[in-house]
Amino acid sequence: MRLIDETALADIALGSTVLGSGGGGDPYVGMLLAREAIRRHGPVPLVDVDEVPDDANIVFIAGLGAPGVLVEKLPRENEYAGVLGELERFTGKTYSYVCPAEAGGFNGITPFATAAVTGVPVIDADGMGRAFPELQLVTPTLYGGRSTPLAMLDEHGNAMYLTSETNVWSESYVRAAVVASGAHAAVAVYPMTGAEAKQRLVRNAITLAEDLGRAIREARAAHTSPVEAVLAKQRGVLLFTGKVEEVERRNEGGWTVGKAHMSGLDDDRGHRMTVHFQNEHLAAERDGRVIATTPDLIMTMEIDSGEPIPAEEIRYGYRVAVVGLPCDPHWRTEAGIRIAGPRHFGYDLDYRPVEEMSR
Amino acid sequence: MRLIDETALADIALGSTVLGSGGGGDPYVGMLLAREAIRRHGPVPLVDVDEVPDDANIVFIAGLGAPGVLVEKLPRENEYAGVLGELERFTGKTYSYVCPAEAGGFNGITPFATAAVTGVPVIDADGMGRAFPELQLVTPTLYGGRSTPLAMLDEHGNAMYLTSETNVWSESYVRAAVVASGAHAAVAVYPMTGAEAKQRLVRNAITLAEDLGRAIREARAAHTSPVEAVLAKQRGVLLFTGKVEEVERRNEGGWTVGKAHMSGLDDDRGHRMTVHFQNEHLAAERDGRVIATTPDLIMTMEIDSGEPIPAEEIRYGYRVAVVGLPCDPHWRTEAGIRIAGPRHFGYDLDYRPVEEMSR
Repeated sequence: MRLIDETALADIALGSTVLGSGGGGDPYVGMLLAREAIRRHGPVPLVDVDEVPDDANIVFIAGLGAPGVLVEKLPRENEYAGVLGELERFTGKTYSYVCPAEAGGFNGITPFATAAVTGVPVIDADGMGRAFPELQLVTPTLYGGRSTPLAMLDEHGNAMYLTSETNVWSESYVRAAVVASGAHAAVAVYPMTGAEAKQRLVRNAITLAEDLGRAIREARAAHTSPVEAVLAKQRGVLLFTGKVEEVERRNEGGWTVGKAHMSGLDDDRGHRMTVHFQNEHLAAERDGRVIATTPDLIMTMEIDSGEPIPAEEIRYGYRVAVVGLPCDPHWRTEAGIRIAGPRHFGYDLDYRPVEEMSR
Repeated sequence: MRLIDETALADIALGSTVLGSGGGGDPYVGMLLAREAIRRHGPVPLVDVDEVPDDANIVFIAGLGAPGVLVEKLPRENEYAGVLGELERFTGKTYSYVCPAEAGGFNGITPFATAAVTGVPVIDADGMGRAFPELQLVTPTLYGGRSTPLAMLDEHGNAMYLTSETNVWSESYVRAAVVASGAHAAVAVYPMTGAEAKQRLVRNAITLAEDLGRAIREARAAHTSPVEAVLAKQRGVLLFTGKVEEVERRNEGGWTVGKAHMSGLDDDRGHRMTVHFQNEHLAAERDGRVIATTPDLIMTMEIDSGEPIPAEEIRYGYRVAVVGLPCDPHWRTEAGIRIAGPRHFGYDLDYRPVEEMSR
């Protein structure tokens, strides 16, 4: 067990942007929310999954916004403080630990708001080791884990509860409910036991985010390359160095969908790169050949500052390194590739690990 | 207490179409569903609201379909059988009576499916005395009645539960959830006690539907005018007799919105009528002057057969009587007119009772 204070939270937020893999929402917004809660209630205990009793009840905490809402106004603490109690009322059980569904993006941070207010510890793990655009795309799904019973609390105080037949149905209901709320909502989802958590979760995901964030921060301070620091930390592959020439981006079914086209710089001069995205980056295509796909992580980082550039912010003129990071081994199983590999997102090609595919 | 058998059910279904006031969905579909349940489980007891103990828990049962779903396939009995148990599981209470939210249209019948399967009686009352297009437009709302806790069960077996801050929020969540289900769902909503039911509900609404249905059936058999029979039954006003010339109709936000234009026949020769609708008929305009509005009922009936023609089916060539029926006194209060009067539906005019306004 260790305590997460404001400095650690800032590193986690920065690292979450890398694990966001182009999506996951802005962790800065989540950081402001959680920082405020920590200032008021004190630091949050972070525990290793092995410290959690097998029979403890744990649950993912995540936030969901109607499109555009997060950037227009900050979510309030109330939803995050209240949603755990709503699930407890609904199920009649006590949940003693919370954990992010995705350590990438905004939702890498939101469980800290719940934890600070309610006093429960956060588990150093998540259900993705990255960000993904759909509720069913979590590692518990690979082991038969159920997303429900779930509770959702919106900022108006409306509470929705669900027991679904499949995790894909939960995705459909929760997404519709957030739109109906016209606002922001917190959700407590995928309740499981400590024993299940040990089998099913991506371990040390929060520490990974923190390490990545700290590596970028320290490289900036030392005037060394933040991109190199991230690659070294995670056995990553530098897929491309280039300048953004054109971005095609549209809203489709609540998602930000499109492509960013780049022309090469330095060693990549004369070559071209296209990064495909649906909230998260889905595939990287170099000179017409796909060299990285989900479930591996594809991230665009501003070359000098190492600032991770999400898909919804990338635009003409950015000078970026396109970085590929291996996903968690859970996703490299047959089941993992089936539910989160390139074919799930409509690409007619087989998954190959980024470290081989990019060669 | 009396028993509702197949014959009574058919009369209720026909009368529900009149009370549907142009909308409410096709009671024929609900009738097939409920008749099947009655054939399997036996007739359903119908009780007067005064027979219900003050401390009994009662709840509205209604069905909701994603647009177009009802006409494409019949809802199954499962949702209606199961939804009451879902609410009981959610609230920890037992519900001993069910009742329609609206005696008009499809949902005048659906509680009989729940009642037949679960063995609970139906109360001879409803929350509208007609049909309305939104969940909050029920008489309990006028007395501070809350729509939640509610339970919704879809045909896939997904169960959603809600506690909302307002009845308008419930409308928003339930509508979104039905779309998310991609199908048909049953909802148990507006739980209340027997004492509250006595104050808040429209009494004898099912008997009224049955009386109207029987009046039409008997007039047809006697070769007298079904339209006259309906007018006599309910102190109604014949607003217009004419032929449909043109119908403007579009789908807007899940509603069927538009106008039906008619030219006069018989005594109305040389005059014109326009009936405005949003699922239900909202206003009748004779030669440019509005002569009837919600919350009073406006119904178009085929002149010879007395067949009620819903707004989604009316088309060029129909020869219809446009009939105005006074709404239940609950709706003629200040609160009733505020939430369900012409201004709620965007008409800049004051409500006046149809029997005066049409003079």
